Formats: sequence, structure tokens, C-alpha cells
Amino acid sequence: MTSDNNGGKSRRRDILAASAAAGALGAAGGLGIAKGLNISQAQAQTRPPQQQGRPGAQRYEVKPGELDEYYVFFSSGQTGELRIMGLPSMRELMRVPVFNRDSATGWGQTNESLKVLTEGLTPEAREFLKDQGGIYTNGDLHHPHPSFTNGTYDGRYLFANDKSNSRVCRIRLDIMKCDKIIQLPNQATVHGLRVQKFPKTGYVFCNGEDRVPVPNDGKILDDPKKYVGMFTAVDGETMKVAWQIQVDGNLDNVDSDYQGKYAWSTCYNSEEGVTLAEMMAKEQDWVVIFNLKRIEDAVKKGDFQTIGGIPVLNGRHGSPFTRYVPVPNSPHGINTAPDGIHFVANGKLSPTCTVFDARKLDDLFDDKIQPRDVVVAEPELGLGPLHTAYDGKGNAFTTLFLDSQVVKWNIDKAKRAYKGEKVDPIIQKLDVHYQPGHNHSSMGQTKEADGKWLLSLNKFSKDRFLNVGPLKPENDQLIDISGDKMVLVHDSPSFAEPHDATIVHRSKIKPLSIWKRDDPFFADAVKQAQADGIKLETDSKVIRDGTKVRVYMTSAAPAYGLEKFEVKQDDEVTVFVTNVDDVEDLTHGFCIVNYGINMEIGPQQTSSVTFKASRPGVYWYYCTWFCHAMHMEMQGRMLVEPKSA
Amino acid sequence: MTSDNNGGKSRRRDILAASAAAGALGAAGGLGIAKGLNISQAQAQTRPPQQQGRPGAQRYEVKPGELDEYYVFFSSGQTGELRIMGLPSMRELMRVPVFNRDSATGWGQTNESLKVLTEGLTPEAREFLKDQGGIYTNGDLHHPHPSFTNGTYDGRYLFANDKSNSRVCRIRLDIMKCDKIIQLPNQATVHGLRVQKFPKTGYVFCNGEDRVPVPNDGKILDDPKKYVGMFTAVDGETMKVAWQIQVDGNLDNVDSDYQGKYAWSTCYNSEEGVTLAEMMAKEQDWVVIFNLKRIEDAVKKGDFQTIGGIPVLNGRHGSPFTRYVPVPNSPHGINTAPDGIHFVANGKLSPTCTVFDARKLDDLFDDKIQPRDVVVAEPELGLGPLHTAYDGKGNAFTTLFLDSQVVKWNIDKAKRAYKGEKVDPIIQKLDVHYQPGHNHSSMGQTKEADGKWLLSLNKFSKDRFLNVGPLKPENDQLIDISGDKMVLVHDSPSFAEPHDATIVHRSKIKPLSIWKRDDPFFADAVKQAQADGIKLETDSKVIRDGTKVRVYMTSAAPAYGLEKFEVKQDDEVTVFVTNVDDVEDLTHGFCIVNYGINMEIGPQQTSSVTFKASRPGVYWYYCTWFCHAMHMEMQGRMLVEPKSA
Repeated sequence: MTSDNNGGKSRRRDILAASAAAGALGAAGGLGIAKGLNISQAQAQTRPPQQQGRPGAQRYEVKPGELDEYYVFFSSGQTGELRIMGLPSMRELMRVPVFNRDSATGWGQTNESLKVLTEGLTPEAREFLKDQGGIYTNGDLHHPHPSFTNGTYDGRYLFANDKSNSRVCRIRLDIMKCDKIIQLPNQATVHGLRVQKFPKTGYVFCNGEDRVPVPNDGKILDDPKKYVGMFTAVDGETMKVAWQIQVDGNLDNVDSDYQGKYAWSTCYNSEEGVTLAEMMAKEQDWVVIFNLKRIEDAVKKGDFQTIGGIPVLNGRHGSPFTRYVPVPNSPHGINTAPDGIHFVANGKLSPTCTVFDARKLDDLFDDKIQPRDVVVAEPELGLGPLHTAYDGKGNAFTTLFLDSQVVKWNIDKAKRAYKGEKVDPIIQKLDVHYQPGHNHSSMGQTKEADGKWLLSLNKFSKDRFLNVGPLKPENDQLIDISGDKMVLVHDSPSFAEPHDATIVHRSKIKPLSIWKRDDPFFADAVKQAQADGIKLETDSKVIRDGTKVRVYMTSAAPAYGLEKFEVKQDDEVTVFVTNVDDVEDLTHGFCIVNYGINMEIGPQQTSSVTFKASRPGVYWYYCTWFCHAMHMEMQGRMLVEPKSA
Repeated sequence: MTSDNNGGKSRRRDILAASAAAGALGAAGGLGIAKGLNISQAQAQTRPPQQQGRPGAQRYEVKPGELDEYYVFFSSGQTGELRIMGLPSMRELMRVPVFNRDSATGWGQTNESLKVLTEGLTPEAREFLKDQGGIYTNGDLHHPHPSFTNGTYDGRYLFANDKSNSRVCRIRLDIMKCDKIIQLPNQATVHGLRVQKFPKTGYVFCNGEDRVPVPNDGKILDDPKKYVGMFTAVDGETMKVAWQIQVDGNLDNVDSDYQGKYAWSTCYNSEEGVTLAEMMAKEQDWVVIFNLKRIEDAVKKGDFQTIGGIPVLNGRHGSPFTRYVPVPNSPHGINTAPDGIHFVANGKLSPTCTVFDARKLDDLFDDKIQPRDVVVAEPELGLGPLHTAYDGKGNAFTTLFLDSQVVKWNIDKAKRAYKGEKVDPIIQKLDVHYQPGHNHSSMGQTKEADGKWLLSLNKFSKDRFLNVGPLKPENDQLIDISGDKMVLVHDSPSFAEPHDATIVHRSKIKPLSIWKRDDPFFADAVKQAQADGIKLETDSKVIRDGTKVRVYMTSAAPAYGLEKFEVKQDDEVTVFVTNVDDVEDLTHGFCIVNYGINMEIGPQQTSSVTFKASRPGVYWYYCTWFCHAMHMEMQGRMLVEPKSA
């Protein structure tokens, strides 16, 4: 076990010291890359990417004009958006607004986004939001996971949770826009979220973390024994809840198998307390295993309660649908290995990880063995183990929150040690900066784990970047795991909070560059135009319908189809803009000055926005997305005739 | 004149070809860095930063644990936020919400941010927004410029405009938060914004771009000849409008001198038309010079009209306060050189830039010379010149939108050519990818221009990054200008839209890491607590005041001062959270599940949020900003008693 880097404020000096000592360490692929490639980068560039650099020292610079090898889908935690990064460059390629409001695209303002943000709300939330503009304006997007077919990514969708307002979203990976959001009933918060890997997604598994009364209407208040914890399976195709199952304790993270038979969640607060002291009282909590076949059979047979229109099963202790495997106090992450056999629960308050063998679960459910018999290793790794990633070569990489380290360890050695053999499963500990949460390896959540890159998402950056005031960025560190030793190659600051991420090879994702005119995203606008006798691609025209006014216009750089339009004060105005430019990267905007209106219209897209023209006068509209040398002149006037006139 | 890089889709192959040809080109500091440093980076790392790399090939990698040399304050255009980047790494260090809503920090929801967002609105906008939550949720932040003292940055403030809703903001550089926003009356849109450089800021100059009726109340509608253009000077200390001056045409960009005597704006649409064809009819537009002393004297003497409480002067043709210097059709950027003498208007529709000599302006205003006599050069540079940056060594760097190039040229040579000498002022043209708008050099907008780095902010990225769907990032390119030739070293994708930027040496900025308890940002909360007899730093307590409930609580990782609090349905609840942790980077959050509430509380900060508890039941609140190993257990319950109970 070695520690290659030194944390703390003196790190810059320490790098130099470590460089000087590198010869003494002498490991090929060890510190080499941290102090620069020894081979000329000029030479490296003339070789194909897979041959560049030596083993354990992959090229990590992406030069101007080169493409990254991987997409990283980053959550943004309490920012509420999805971020798309390139890896290894760690450049932010796109922000996809989801649970947040976005000024640039009009997310939360266009009719198309309002439909996504409102149609899946629970009736109670819809009522609650009536006086607040009808939508939540915040979110806490934790776990972004793409859809699978046969154990690897299929490029269709990405799913993620909103912990703050109990929602699940779906993002279409062809257009990189969120097309569905649902709010889960009978449940407070969605924390852990993962998807079914086999035969396909399929289910999106959603952990209800906090326990609340069901229904939560105020009849039960300070009576925690009557609070309920819930696990939900959403159908990723229809984005409807398939079923819910009541559990003991607070569910934390979740993952699934490669056989389509089981899902598993870490579960803390087996005490079912409501204060920190109560929650930490016991030395032991659980991993909960869900038997999908038994649950589906029960749902088919009608063996459930219906609550709020949802089939709800009882999965508390003693249920045929679940097994509770005791693990040390407050386990956190749970991660399925690419071998299709093992999964690991991370100890958090225990310095251990618990390794399970999925092949033993049939026997467990058939009561042939005891719960702890499915545990095949429990190595002591360090302080605060939170999440584990894999290289597909039998090694695991676990973040240690308290130690501020990533530990590389070998699953097989841990199993041998568990059986009593004198063998140390720990291969290396690497300092990260500081306090890592989730970590991720390239393709490591699939059967195609390639063992090339690891990201450590660290919660504090402290002194690692220029001081930007009391609020500091977090620090996502890129680690080369292609060699025997992990090597830290890049520090990447990020705004709150890259809670979780998924690294997907670029070959898996095939987005469009031009919208299709029959895209369902703006089908309502097309339907309305048809009813009004408008051909969106060519017509620019104003339709008055009582006090409702529908303004249709094209946009083609550098002009809108309408140089002006007139409405009356207090009209309800809907503006439909159709971008008729059929050119890659030629997005238009539509912004009305002092009216607080702005939206994005991509090539061949139609976008619409509805507002009350309550302010009389002359209001210029202009293009906000740079489109042409005469972009600044792409404008027009909305003339609002006063009521009194 | 050489073109060092090739654009288009075949660029990756072209790099290799260029590498092979590099020996033939043979220029020291030429293509060297684009194909990798020849000296060992390991060696380079042991030298102090100023000695690293050879001339013309500065080190641009910032290794883990190293700090960037410069802050870059990036606008975000229609995203509405300010971004802080590090240079040369081009990493985003922080987002500062300003005109947008931000889910992570509660910007647009906390009482502290709502005060900033509402107190400077015009009465008409306040009335208009009454039914829409009281705030604009979008912005179009174009031009971020820090405050000056004696011709260079003083680290106090940064100012920026909102083109979409006619606002100007101020950001405090000690805490990196926006503390003031005002909306400009008598004006539609604020486009160009720059600040007074000498003796200090002082004035913030704001170009009204679009012409509208004043007052814009609907009495004048489709009568463009009655529309008015306006130039505004805001007092940066008080954030009140000092004066406004009516102008001919549409003002575009603005800059100021190093003597404290003049400001100057480009001005298009001298036709005062309202359609694209009308606006482009004439071959000639203007640069407008504003004489600050004459304007101030007139304001002192009361020689103005008062409109909406603001002193408004007449600066149209023939006014003593302005001069209109004819330049070719539709000039765009205007940039003052670090020599304190020259300023350059960029031609946009003309392939030329027009160079002015500020020393001639006194004579111009005294009518001793003609307007065009202040022009000392007008070099032809290429198609679509938009903005010019400087290296402090007599050279200028102009973006060519249509040519997708940056052209380096010499001011002195341009002046000699203008006098008839046969000399080519153009030194080099470098391809950028694609369509550059603003550009910026390190410290280049001050008298301390250091000639090290240039940023080209390009509007289209097309094929330069992994495909992320129909909406593409823009592309900010980093160019090394320390040698004789410009060298492109990095492509940096960014979300809409890095419209403009300012590169500031890190020695100029000294932010705090811990809030001061007497910070005016949360003074209202402190005052309310005093009235309630609460000591915010220690007390956690609920105060009922009719149907208003004030909940005071501390936060100290990993617990809030209150494990629960009870309110009645429909109470107006204000929660004040005081982060008593006195630790760098230890920010807490406060989020109420399913209530749509979330906010940031930095170390030693107090934040507050007010909402109506219209939904009965048990609602958990939790910490959204990761703070501790037991962060996830940092939570409590809001119990909302139903009305009927």
C-alpha cells in the first residue's frame, strides 16, 4: 500500500518533492504522467489514439480540434440540471436544464418545457404550486443513468432523480432534452436511482429515502412510528409508476443485476428514528434485496393495495418480496461489478465494504441459506467508504470520504482474505482533494468496463483553485487507472454539485444535429398551427381568437418572418417561432425586451411561449442566440395598444 | 501574412500535416506549442512559472494542485449569470447568479436575493411583474467589466448589463455575489457597457441600443420617427443613474479614455429605420464622443429636462455634449488601447477598423478641426471586424467574424499606411473555429496590458466537440500571443453565451473565504432577529407573530439547531438559517422536500426564505451542500398542521 500524493496546503511543494523521488519509486506507469510524458507529445500525436502514451500513462490532453473519447453525464445536484462533459478533457460540452429554470433556453417558460414540468406532478403538488407559477423552480438531481440493453448502454435515454421534490426525469439522448418528468406519489424524496441492465431498461429503480405518513395530509404529524419508507419501480418506456413496495428503514443507494432478477439497496436508519442520535444508535443496518419476479407475479395476481392509483406491496421484514441482509451501521453506495456476479455495499460509518455474490440470492429467497451467507468478503479499506467503481479486471476503486483517498483493491483477494487466507486485498491508496463522494470508471457500470479512467467527485476544493469567495467549487479529479497504479492527472472544479456521473464511450451515443419536423417535443404547436390553417415552415401570421392572439413566425438568419406585430393590452399572446434554417449549429433565440421572455429555437425546431401583454407600448424582440453577421439587427417590434386607446 | 491553422472538418489530419511541415516553417515559437513542448514538462515544473517554456510557447497546462495565473470574468449572455474562469486552464471556477434564477443557491428565492432583484426595478416593471412572482427570471448578460482606479483594476466591483430587461448589475468581488441591480428608465435595452478608467469608477456607461418612445406607455406606437435613443451614466458607487443623454442612431458598444474626459460609442442605424433594409441603407454611420466635463457642468447648472426623475440632456447632432464622427456602415466594437491615446472602432460591414487619436478630441469639441480629423488610421483587415484587443506593445488583435480569423496588426504601421507610406500593418492571420465575436487579451483593457494571452470567443463550434444534439456549445479559444506569432493552444466549449470577458491578473482580486457577520448582504435578517430578541449565532427558536412565523436556526455540520418545527397550514413562514461553522469551504444548504425551497448558507452567513405553508403534512428539510460524513443525516421535519385539525 503506497500513498502517491500528499494532501493539504503544501501540495505544490510536495509535487516537486515527489518528482525528485520518482526515480527512487521506479514504478513504470507510476508517477510518470503526473510529472509529464517522457516521450515527445509531438511523436505521440502521430500515432493512433489507442497506441498513444505508454501503459499506465494515457494521453489526457485533447488538443484543439480533437474529440474526446467519452461522454460524461454529470448530475449537478442542487443546481437541478444535467451536464454533459467530455473525457479526458473534462470540458463541459452542454448543460441540459431539467429541474431548474434556464434563462438561455426558456426552460420553465416555453409551452413545450411547461408541459414536461407540469404533466407528471401529483395532484397535491399541482394544487400547492398554483399560486407559485405552477412549477417547482429548484431540483436536486443526483443520479444520472443511461438506459441499457443487454448489459450495456443503448443510447436511447438517460434517467435521473430529483431528491428535493421527489421526481424522476427522462432525457432523450437523440436531442439531449428532457422529455418526461414524473413526481412519485406515496413517497418523500427520491434518493438512489439506477436502471434495469438486463434484458433492457425497463425499470427505473427509485429509493424513497425519508419516511413520511402515507397519505401525507397532516392527519399524522409527529408520530414517526407511523411513517412509511417506499421503493418505487418506474417503467422507463411509459414513465408511469409500475409498482411500489413498502420497506423498513431509510433507503439510500440502489443498483441492479445483469440477469434481470434482482435489485438491491443500501438501507440505513434501521432504528427508524428521526434524529441523528436515534438514527445512529444501532451498530447494524441492512442491504435490502428485491425479487423482481415475485413482485411482478404478485402485481399480476392483484396481491397488492392500491394507494393513490399505484399498486403498493408490503416488503417489510418477513415479506416474500425482500430479504434484509445485515451489514455494518449506515451503508451508503451499492455498486454492481461488471463480472455480473458481485456487488459491493460501502460502509460509510464502518471502514469496510461488504461484497455479495448474486448467484446465492435464489437460495436466500428460497430460505436455503441465511442472509449473511450471501456475503463473500468484507475487507477493511479505510475511513468513510462511500462508493465503489470497477476496472473490469477484477479490481475495485472505493472512495474514502474521511481519509480523502481512493483505495484500489482486488475483489478476489478480498474473498480469499474473508476465508482466512493471509492476503492483503489493498493495492494502492491515492490522495484526492478533498473528501470524495461518488466515483466512476469508464464504462464501469456496464459489462464493457474498460479500465481506462476513473473520476473521483470530491466535495471540497479548499485551496486547489483561485479563491472565488466564500462559496468554493467542488473538485472532480481525473485518474488514469490503465496501469498498475492509479495516477492523478487533472483537477476539474465544478459548480454545485457533480453528485454522480456516468462515463459512456462516444460510440454509444448518436445525437441529431437538426431537429426532425415531426418530433413529438413540439407536436402540440404543430397541432395548433394546423387548426389555425398555418404552415409553420413558411407562414408568418397573426391569428386573433377573442382575447387570445397566436403569433406565428419563421426565423431565418438574420430575420424573423414578422418585422412587427400588434396586440391589445391584456391579450393572452402565444408566439410560435419556427427556425427554418437547416444548418448545423444555427440556433435562433426569441427575446422580448422588458417582457421577461426568452427562448431557444434550434435548427428546424418550433418553440412557443404564452404571456399576458399587460404592459402597453413598443417592445423590441431580438435574436439571443448568435446566428449571423447581422444577428444584432435580427429584431422586430411588438406594439401593445393600451386599453384606454 | 500567414495562416497557421486550417479550419473545417479535416482539421485533425491537418494538424498532423502541419506538424510534419513545422521544420520547414522553422519559426521559433511558431507551431511549436501546438504540437507539444519539446522541453520536458518535468523539467519545466521545477522552474518558477515566469521561466517556464520558451519565448512564444508559454506553459498552458495547469497541473493538479497548481493555481491559474488569471481570473477571467465571463459573461454568459442569455444564461444571465456571471462565470469565473481560471486562465490558462480555462476551467470554470464559479457561477455567480445575477439575472437568472439559480436552484443551487436560492437566487431568486431567498429574501436577500429578492431584495437585489426587486429594489431597482422601474415602477412600470414592478407593476408588470406583480402577477409573475415579482421578478424577471431571464437576463442577457453581455459585458462584464471590473472597477478601475488610476487606469487599472482595483478589485472592488464588477459591473455588467442585461440587454433583455434593460438592467445593470454590480457584483462585489470580495464575496463574488451580486449586491445591486438597477433597471434603467427612459431606455429600451442596455447593450454596450464599460466603466470609467480614470481617476476611478466612477461612471458605468450604458448604451441604449433600441430606440423607443419616451415614455413608452403606448401613446406612441408605430411611429419610429418619434422613438428616442439614450446613453446613460450610472454612478457605480451609489448604483443610481447620474444622467442620461439623448442621441441619434442606435448605440452599440462603448469605451472610455484614460484621462477621465471622454466616453465613446459606436452607433449604427443612423437611418433610424426599424427594418433590416432600412438600417443598412446608408454607407456611413458614426462613432459618438461624449464630453463628460460639459455634461457634468450642464447637470450642475440644471441645464436638462427631468424625465422619470432622471436629468436628461439632448446630445443629438449639434449638441455641445457630443460629436458624431462618420465611419463606415454599422461599426460594432470600440476598444481603447493601453497606450492611453488610441481607440479603435471595428467595421463589421466594412473590412476596416477606424483608429482615433484621443488627444485630438479637445480641438474637435472646440470646433478647431472637423470630425474626421480625429481619425489617424483606417486599415483594411478582412471580412467582419468586430472587436479589437491589445498586447501593450503597439499591436492590435481584431476578430473577423466572416473570415473566422483573428488578425494581428500594428497600430503604428497602420498610421503610417494611412499617411500614404507603402507598409502593410497586418502581421498574421490565425484561423479560429468558428465566427469570433468578442476577444480579450490578458490585462489588455488596462494600462497594464501584458501581452501574454488572447481569448477569441467564437459563436459556433460545429464539429469541434462531441455531438451533444441540435444545440451546440460555443467555442472560446485560448491563443498564446507572447511570441511574434499567435499560437492556438486550447479549445474551450461553453454554454450560451460567453458574450464578453475580462482577463484579470490574480494579484488584483482578494476575495474572502468566510463571511463577515456584519456584512450588509444579510443585514435585514440581523435586524429582524434583533427585533425578535434572537442572537442568530446561537439561538434556534420559533417566533409566532399572528399568522407570520419566523423560524430561526443555526447550522453546524452535521445538524441544524432545530430537529423539527411546527407551523399551521397557510402560515407565512420565514426560515432564517445561520451557518455557525467558521471553516473555509463549509457551505450548508437548506432544502424543504416537495416545498420547492432551497438555499445556500456559506460559512458565517445568514440566509432566509419566506413561503406560505399551504400544504399540510410532514416535510423533511435537509442540507443540500455536502458538509460532513453525516451530511445525509443532516435533516429535520417541518410539521404543518392542517387547517381543519
